[in-house]
Amino acid sequence: MALIVQKYGGTSVGSIDRIQNVAARLKAERDKGNQVVAVVSAMGGVTDKLLGLAAELSDAPPERELDVLLSTGEQQSIALVSMALNAMGIPTKSITGRQAGIITSGGHTRGRIEDIDPSYMLDQLDEGNVLIVAGFQGLTSDGSIHTLGRGGSDLTAIAVAAALKADLCQILTDVDGVYTCDPRIVKNATKIKEISYDEMLEMASSGSKVMQSRSVEFASKYGVVFEVRSSLNDNPGTLVLKEHSDMEQVVIRGVSIERSQARVTITGIPDEPGMSSRILGVLGEADINIDMIVANISSDNMSRHSFTMHSNDLGKAQAALKPVLDDISDEAAMETEAGIAKLSCVGIGMRSHSGVAAKMFDALGNAGINIGLISTSEIKITVTVDEHQIEDAAVAVHTAFGLDKQ
Amino acid sequence: MALIVQKYGGTSVGSIDRIQNVAARLKAERDKGNQVVAVVSAMGGVTDKLLGLAAELSDAPPERELDVLLSTGEQQSIALVSMALNAMGIPTKSITGRQAGIITSGGHTRGRIEDIDPSYMLDQLDEGNVLIVAGFQGLTSDGSIHTLGRGGSDLTAIAVAAALKADLCQILTDVDGVYTCDPRIVKNATKIKEISYDEMLEMASSGSKVMQSRSVEFASKYGVVFEVRSSLNDNPGTLVLKEHSDMEQVVIRGVSIERSQARVTITGIPDEPGMSSRILGVLGEADINIDMIVANISSDNMSRHSFTMHSNDLGKAQAALKPVLDDISDEAAMETEAGIAKLSCVGIGMRSHSGVAAKMFDALGNAGINIGLISTSEIKITVTVDEHQIEDAAVAVHTAFGLDKQ
Repeated sequence: MALIVQKYGGTSVGSIDRIQNVAARLKAERDKGNQVVAVVSAMGGVTDKLLGLAAELSDAPPERELDVLLSTGEQQSIALVSMALNAMGIPTKSITGRQAGIITSGGHTRGRIEDIDPSYMLDQLDEGNVLIVAGFQGLTSDGSIHTLGRGGSDLTAIAVAAALKADLCQILTDVDGVYTCDPRIVKNATKIKEISYDEMLEMASSGSKVMQSRSVEFASKYGVVFEVRSSLNDNPGTLVLKEHSDMEQVVIRGVSIERSQARVTITGIPDEPGMSSRILGVLGEADINIDMIVANISSDNMSRHSFTMHSNDLGKAQAALKPVLDDISDEAAMETEAGIAKLSCVGIGMRSHSGVAAKMFDALGNAGINIGLISTSEIKITVTVDEHQIEDAAVAVHTAFGLDKQ
Repeated sequence: MALIVQKYGGTSVGSIDRIQNVAARLKAERDKGNQVVAVVSAMGGVTDKLLGLAAELSDAPPERELDVLLSTGEQQSIALVSMALNAMGIPTKSITGRQAGIITSGGHTRGRIEDIDPSYMLDQLDEGNVLIVAGFQGLTSDGSIHTLGRGGSDLTAIAVAAALKADLCQILTDVDGVYTCDPRIVKNATKIKEISYDEMLEMASSGSKVMQSRSVEFASKYGVVFEVRSSLNDNPGTLVLKEHSDMEQVVIRGVSIERSQARVTITGIPDEPGMSSRILGVLGEADINIDMIVANISSDNMSRHSFTMHSNDLGKAQAALKPVLDDISDEAAMETEAGIAKLSCVGIGMRSHSGVAAKMFDALGNAGINIGLISTSEIKITVTVDEHQIEDAAVAVHTAFGLDKQ
């Protein structure tokens, strides 16, 4: 008998039919003799509807009250899934974040899981129940309702799996698993069988939004093996786990892309301490998420900083940086470029294989694609290219590293 | 500075506009320098919508899960009312049944309030907040979500007022107060200024459904004075309180009616112990609420039992009683009558005034109305009449006791 945690997102429980489908899947798992815990999100659309009501009442509703409001979405889901499963003759118990013993910290609407006291869940499992746990929510140490922000239900599933020492945690979603590249772009992309936490994190941070980074980080920290698979079929998905030696056989695990990027380059920065933090500080205060940061020294001892961001933030960034330029030096100037995209190769095999960057640049050159910025980490190489060439670039690199379906 | 508890029902918070109206009323109360606690129901229609979803999933959804599902309605309301009031610049805190410290007992979907620990509410009041408390819900001693059944939000308001030692508890509703009779039937009905708990209970049990009996009983037990008034205007309503000597000056406080009644009479019951309980037991098992019970002995030492019920239950009652008749005696027979209604006169003044029944019967006789069953309690006289005559009967009795508007 294994203990299995399955997470179903808002689309999977988005209608009465789909709730019954989830219940049937849970029943099938239990009929195999397993103990089953489901973590569910709010029915698709419910959260947006509640946010709409809140927006009608206030431009800036108190975040504590947003948490009280939004957490009802998951509470409705757990009751409904529990009813559906119960109607199939299976003993069930719905479990709110509070009953799951999930203690959180951090600001309202963006809670962090600090601890889980699984005693109530363990009692309910011992009594033979399938548990239906509300994702996305917990309780602060002083008893306030707290939601976990984006990707919160995945985080709940991983944390519950860790607390219950589950044998397997499955994240059921509308994709079949993690692919070597987005199959809508690279027709020959293949499903990845196993991927390490670090690779998954780098894929996520470069645009493969299967899961939020925080859930993967949490799984990595507590060693929770999880599988990303489809809630619509029974195909095996992608297993995300601690890296093992076999994994380094593959040079590149996957290729990920991110569109709608923009670049800001500031030139004429005196090569003095504190310059970088000043520039980045201004952007942080303006709440702009910057991504690639590339700094170079020019021959005249002046420094040149480039960074990328979502193109929606470009205007805000320009406005925030303008007053800083005058302060920095008379030579300081800003240059911006929108309409670019990022392309990343990710793989722990990079560590033990040389020439990966050269091979990547070569592939791009042969395809007639010009490279803008370049930045690298131990297991990732990222470049920027013109956005209209990103699909060709992805196909070229995917083929060059032998990732194409046979 | 007074501490005021106000209860708003589902209609009062049924739309964004109405929520803002409630918020404005709470602000006005606070602007007078009072501490304010609002108890709110789910937005009108939400509970029915949730019950509809449950019904799609199961013919008999587990009651524990119904509680989890239904309690989200009030949780949404408290967050929204809190947001609306906060947007008017007033510090607020929403309070779930759990946070209000409401401990319940009894079966799911029909909880009873056992105890309230008001410490969290008192802390929040001390910090200057207006509290928005979820009606209709509490927590069992083992931490399960529990709803209080019909009239549960009124009960919450009364219990919270008792626990906080509030100076005043106002039940804001869509009627202006308690009237001497339903103004749609008796045009000259007047609003009652003060009514005792006992009179209010008898009025409720005879069809004046302003409030559920259990809330009035709870208020009586804990001595909570409350006012029933309109949420749409600022007119004074009806104060419900412990009786005082002035109240007996009035012979009859009000006249209440109940339509759609049916009568079952069983004749030929041997005058032996246990017969009544056998008959009533069968009806209880069939979940039929019977109301008036009138038993007589005939000259032949056979007993005759009559009782009334809602006419919807008549068929079920006949079916349940049929097998019992054969057991009772060969002479036992059943006679039924639908299309009747009940008329009650209620007033603690009855105790100190004689001839009340005679006056009532006289008024009905003069109006050409025939009386069926009669039953009396210390402060109530109830008769049945043909349903098509009930309005004339109410007008005649209302006038006879001098209750008409001057």
